[in-house]
Amino acid sequence: MTSIVTFTTDFGTDDHYAGTMKGVVLSINPEATLVDICHAIPAYDILQGALTVARAYAYFPAGTVHVVVVDPGVGSSRRAIVADTGQHRFVAPDNGVLSFVYEREARVTVREITNERYFLHPVSNTFHGRDVFAPVAAHLSRGIEIDSVGPVITDFERLDLPKPRALGNNSLQGTVLKIDRFGNIVTNLTPEEIAHTLGTDHPLRVRICSTEITTIRRSYAGSNHGELFAIFGSMGFLEIAVNQGSAAELLRARVGDVVEVQSL
Amino acid sequence: MTSIVTFTTDFGTDDHYAGTMKGVVLSINPEATLVDICHAIPAYDILQGALTVARAYAYFPAGTVHVVVVDPGVGSSRRAIVADTGQHRFVAPDNGVLSFVYEREARVTVREITNERYFLHPVSNTFHGRDVFAPVAAHLSRGIEIDSVGPVITDFERLDLPKPRALGNNSLQGTVLKIDRFGNIVTNLTPEEIAHTLGTDHPLRVRICSTEITTIRRSYAGSNHGELFAIFGSMGFLEIAVNQGSAAELLRARVGDVVEVQSL
Amino acid sequence: MTSIVTFTTDFGTDDHYAGTMKGVVLSINPEATLVDICHAIPAYDILQGALTVARAYAYFPAGTVHVVVVDPGVGSSRRAIVADTGQHRFVAPDNGVLSFVYEREARVTVREITNERYFLHPVSNTFHGRDVFAPVAAHLSRGIEIDSVGPVITDFERLDLPKPRALGNNSLQGTVLKIDRFGNIVTNLTPEEIAHTLGTDHPLRVRICSTEITTIRRSYAGSNHGELFAIFGSMGFLEIAVNQGSAAELLRARVGDVVEVQSL
Repeated sequence: MTSIVTFTTDFGTDDHYAGTMKGVVLSINPEATLVDICHAIPAYDILQGALTVARAYAYFPAGTVHVVVVDPGVGSSRRAIVADTGQHRFVAPDNGVLSFVYEREARVTVREITNERYFLHPVSNTFHGRDVFAPVAAHLSRGIEIDSVGPVITDFERLDLPKPRALGNNSLQGTVLKIDRFGNIVTNLTPEEIAHTLGTDHPLRVRICSTEITTIRRSYAGSNHGELFAIFGSMGFLEIAVNQGSAAELLRARVGDVVEVQSL
Repeated sequence: MTSIVTFTTDFGTDDHYAGTMKGVVLSINPEATLVDICHAIPAYDILQGALTVARAYAYFPAGTVHVVVVDPGVGSSRRAIVADTGQHRFVAPDNGVLSFVYEREARVTVREITNERYFLHPVSNTFHGRDVFAPVAAHLSRGIEIDSVGPVITDFERLDLPKPRALGNNSLQGTVLKIDRFGNIVTNLTPEEIAHTLGTDHPLRVRICSTEITTIRRSYAGSNHGELFAIFGSMGFLEIAVNQGSAAELLRARVGDVVEVQSL
Repeated sequence: MTSIVTFTTDFGTDDHYAGTMKGVVLSINPEATLVDICHAIPAYDILQGALTVARAYAYFPAGTVHVVVVDPGVGSSRRAIVADTGQHRFVAPDNGVLSFVYEREARVTVREITNERYFLHPVSNTFHGRDVFAPVAAHLSRGIEIDSVGPVITDFERLDLPKPRALGNNSLQGTVLKIDRFGNIVTNLTPEEIAHTLGTDHPLRVRICSTEITTIRRSYAGSNHGELFAIFGSMGFLEIAVNQGSAAELLRARVGDVVEVQSL
């Protein structure tokens, strides 16, 4: 049986936090295969955590358990949850950090984790990654029945995700979701939504940060060195990129900036 | 048999150093499970290395081998050692980087590594992580007899760790041990020492960086956004924190700064 | 059978890219042992990627598959290749990122990857790490016949690597290959080349960044705190170092800077 546990957190890798969680998992399930998806989610940034895990999880084998900890509410009354898609299970605080998973999946069963038998005792008020999420994930990876963690809930938290908005029939307005390490600007506009709103017959113009872009490339390499262009990227969204450069730096773009696509 | 090897180093993750050590371990024990505790110890900072491994190791299963390499003296006459707590084994330079382990554990047997049979030859003067510590750890993880690495020594190095100091019977002076990635200021004052010196009947006032703090919270979330407060954190020490912000930045705190706790 | 897959990329660890590749590998070969060599290659820097993987791979067991992705040409007509040394296999874009491997190994067989059966479909134009290199590596780690990936090629790309140059018979000119996390300045001059050109009878003088260095140390520790010196380092090259400090910062050295070694 596959016994993979992944980690997506805002713990960084400068401290002992991520390593400690792994020790907890291995103490419960020494056979687990541990994989970091990302520990560099900006501190307390639930949206970025939600986005990162949602882009990666589906590439893991069925049965994988994903620990997702961006948890500004640790120690408060926010609930701890397990979400189950049938293929993947997620262990996380109930603060919306699984919102993009809920959006992608037709069916998700969410349970509140109430069974303290699976916790590391004494449970601290400050590090549930160690005391709650990691041990529950480890027990799940060993094959415990998922209904033993706690009851199904339906009022789990969802982020109010930014949605694209049609402005008339020849313009679609979106927002910047993410800047990646290459400086690519990832928007929340999918090729499907653009085609649906603007059709596929006319060339497109992208407006962002007071700049207009009419070049749409099929690959980063299919452009001149330093050229600014738009591209449908590997995350499934429209991106703004610079060939071997940083579009975000060039345009001073930031998460939340407005982007508009028009058909000409 | 569990065969876990952890790594705590100041090698960073920008070069090939950490990966090379892992290759060495897997060449000797392909079945080993490798876990990074931290590679971001500030270069040559033995105290931070000592602190980081000491906060994480006990969460790993018995039998784990911990490689700890912060080694400004590599190539000099400083000894290489294996420390054995009965549950955990540590492979490290003898420069005090295991000081907090010695402090936590009732019984530790320390051996000088003299058996060059376990080394990678030729042994360089500059990278004992690769040539000495990783291969010895790999052999230990395969189950060699620990006394085959070399003789027991008792004059191993200990850091002169900063100790809390009572100032009269209503004040306890400590120091900042660490700043974590969230900007939390971790002191060397434990709840036990504070209760012992100051009692538990009176409210506390914390002085640090010319600032007075009288709010003690039970969790990061149990406070207002941006509020500065003290808290007994997951590392077992008094911490100064800001709700969803960086206390270290706000107070311009640094490792080694004085902190004073008074009962009012 | 050993089934180790290593990763050397410029994807960084701030996004989901590295984790996604690992999910892909585990989906094809759940038994694979995954090891990061480095994800912090500067974006698009083929030379640094080439150098990093070449310093680490030989320490892994025979049979290891190394995924190397620094790929500014993703989506263009640049080929994808598998290089086989008999002991190690490399999966990479054909852009010279394996140049130091070719240089180290007496015999390397390079194949173009043409068998799309091993790809993740649909293949994007922007993330071949996920869609091409990771899945091919996973299949190799499961033991597929290497000739099933595609035909042998001989016109694979090699970087025009900077070569040391003799200036008369008492001087050797080289270049800075790399700055490591400690600030050590790694040149492309090997002890063998220096001995061959300058002999071993006379003391050496190193010139770099308008500074002359005549102290050659055998270890970092065999020097005074803050001292600047030259040393033959663990990568097999002449390095310039400062005891517990950063030589690169002190000298403002950069990759590509000229270094000259003279016999006195």
